[in-house]
Amino acid sequence: MAKVPVEEVIRFSTDCFKALGVNAKAACQQADMLYQADRIGYFSHGLNRLEFYVNDVKNGACTPNKQPKVEKETVSMAWVNANNVFGSTASHFSMDLAIKKAKCSGVGWVCVKESNHYGIGGYWAMKAAKQGLMAFALSNSSPLLVPTRSKKAVLGTNPIAFVAPGCDDDYFYLDFATTAVSMGKIAFYARKGRKLPDGWALGPNGKMTNDPKEAMKARQLMPLGGTESSSGYKGYGLAAMVEVLCGITAGSKYGHHIRSWVLSNKSGGSANLGHAFIVMDPHQFAPGFKERVSECLSYWRNMEPADPKLPVIAPGDMEKLVGGKTDREGTITYIKRILEHSRKIAKDLKVKPLKEIPL
Amino acid sequence: MAKVPVEEVIRFSTDCFKALGVNAKAACQQADMLYQADRIGYFSHGLNRLEFYVNDVKNGACTPNKQPKVEKETVSMAWVNANNVFGSTASHFSMDLAIKKAKCSGVGWVCVKESNHYGIGGYWAMKAAKQGLMAFALSNSSPLLVPTRSKKAVLGTNPIAFVAPGCDDDYFYLDFATTAVSMGKIAFYARKGRKLPDGWALGPNGKMTNDPKEAMKARQLMPLGGTESSSGYKGYGLAAMVEVLCGITAGSKYGHHIRSWVLSNKSGGSANLGHAFIVMDPHQFAPGFKERVSECLSYWRNMEPADPKLPVIAPGDMEKLVGGKTDREGTITYIKRILEHSRKIAKDLKVKPLKEIPL
Repeated sequence: MAKVPVEEVIRFSTDCFKALGVNAKAACQQADMLYQADRIGYFSHGLNRLEFYVNDVKNGACTPNKQPKVEKETVSMAWVNANNVFGSTASHFSMDLAIKKAKCSGVGWVCVKESNHYGIGGYWAMKAAKQGLMAFALSNSSPLLVPTRSKKAVLGTNPIAFVAPGCDDDYFYLDFATTAVSMGKIAFYARKGRKLPDGWALGPNGKMTNDPKEAMKARQLMPLGGTESSSGYKGYGLAAMVEVLCGITAGSKYGHHIRSWVLSNKSGGSANLGHAFIVMDPHQFAPGFKERVSECLSYWRNMEPADPKLPVIAPGDMEKLVGGKTDREGTITYIKRILEHSRKIAKDLKVKPLKEIPL
Repeated sequence: MAKVPVEEVIRFSTDCFKALGVNAKAACQQADMLYQADRIGYFSHGLNRLEFYVNDVKNGACTPNKQPKVEKETVSMAWVNANNVFGSTASHFSMDLAIKKAKCSGVGWVCVKESNHYGIGGYWAMKAAKQGLMAFALSNSSPLLVPTRSKKAVLGTNPIAFVAPGCDDDYFYLDFATTAVSMGKIAFYARKGRKLPDGWALGPNGKMTNDPKEAMKARQLMPLGGTESSSGYKGYGLAAMVEVLCGITAGSKYGHHIRSWVLSNKSGGSANLGHAFIVMDPHQFAPGFKERVSECLSYWRNMEPADPKLPVIAPGDMEKLVGGKTDREGTITYIKRILEHSRKIAKDLKVKPLKEIPL
């Protein structure tokens, strides 16, 4: 493990993309997207994925020097063709458009096709919240979630992000995958030699497993809620709903048609993912919106906890805590594996390596 | 148990409301709302609740002869004051308005304050889907859901309904509470003498319980996902998100401020619930929306099941199955308790009792 100054995280990723011929703006925005995930502790979506994005550019699966364009629009909506640019380019373009429309008509609903992985949805929704609006950011992704009763993953983790502004820069922040747990959590149980609870994952035989190693092999996650009797069909329904709002509406790839995301020298073709950015201006409704959001956040935070060591928190408080710590310290601590990957990428692309500060 | 002809279900509830002086249209719409729940097997939301609605009118908590009105609107949105009418009156008014706006600008987003329980959200979303639109129907409700780590219910079950049209009158239909399970399911476990799994409910001491009787006493449900380690905080976040979109946006009561819904001769005041109806016209985006919805529904239905006796179904298939059966048979079978309640109400209100056909 080592600490890395935050400006180095962004500098390094930017340099990697630039070394591949990506224009400065796209390189910088994509680097920032990765940094924003690590900043709040979503390490699976940060530097950890740099190699995947680099690979997509190298093998031609992603074409970051193109430009997204609007295919069709009304006063409240727009259908965007991302033209296979970076997910961050597509998302800045589309969220900015949704914000503009929401400021004009009260609502901005933008659907995007031909896009790539956009990192953490909460970051995009937050763009709107910073301007006093509330927003959803939704995206489909490669199959990993197994519909209730079935044996095979045919839906992505299809995360839902929703952010709403409160008073004094406070906000309600929700960003979660529609699977019961993440592959990262399964891997953690495998490392600790702990058995998985029921309702988290299937094994390679298509049956539920309590063995994290079998689950790692199979990569078939159960939906939020877990087993059918614990309402796993609700998580399945949520993942499917996100797919209806993203790929099915946008006319991109969807569900079982989405290719897996692997490291390969040969392009598996463009990902053609779909996103939805839905922005609404709460000022169009009842006055006092931010005050009510803040009153709720504060009420939840002050509830008596079942376990005094585990205070009740409001949605997004964990992210705020970690993000605040990163901002104060100005560094991010990475595990060995991510640092090794970064060194390898630096060497491959002949880019100045990440500055690592030993702990 | 006895069978009741469907027209009798509607006739009886309509008569009950009329006997209390409710105008014919409101009485009929509210009766239909109750019937629609029983029709698809959501018995907790049908005749089972008639007594509550009757009571609300009797004690003045609800004033069904008033009219909802638009407080504020743009081309894509409207803020509605339901004026404490029936949930069905408010929902027809608001969903019709959202549909009209969606047909005009592509999106219709309507928030409602001063409303009452609106039954099953799927019924309202379905109104839009029947016209080729996709829709959300969201509502807050009385506290029953306990935020992760806390000891007390301060959010409603805050159900999410989302319906999208497919080809040939098929559709994607999702309608679920954001709690792990319903109170009805806890009661079922109590009757069977079965232990509750972890992650469903708290006991009166504010700690998780496996005893369904303790859970029945406490009426404190855990969120979808269950315990914190199984991602219960996602269900908590979802319930809170629905509250942001309903009560907090609409300026109605919200979360911990919502009164409980009890039978009482004395009015506890108006419920002042908040709803959101969000309609979007998929034709504004990529062509072929309905075809893609149907292709997905069909793909999921034809997946190999883990257990050959339990076929994989698409979201909403269970409701379609039960609804279709009701339509074919023309009757609904009610349990003794609901029939007894109906007889009592008939006597109280001097209304012709439900026609019961013994099984």
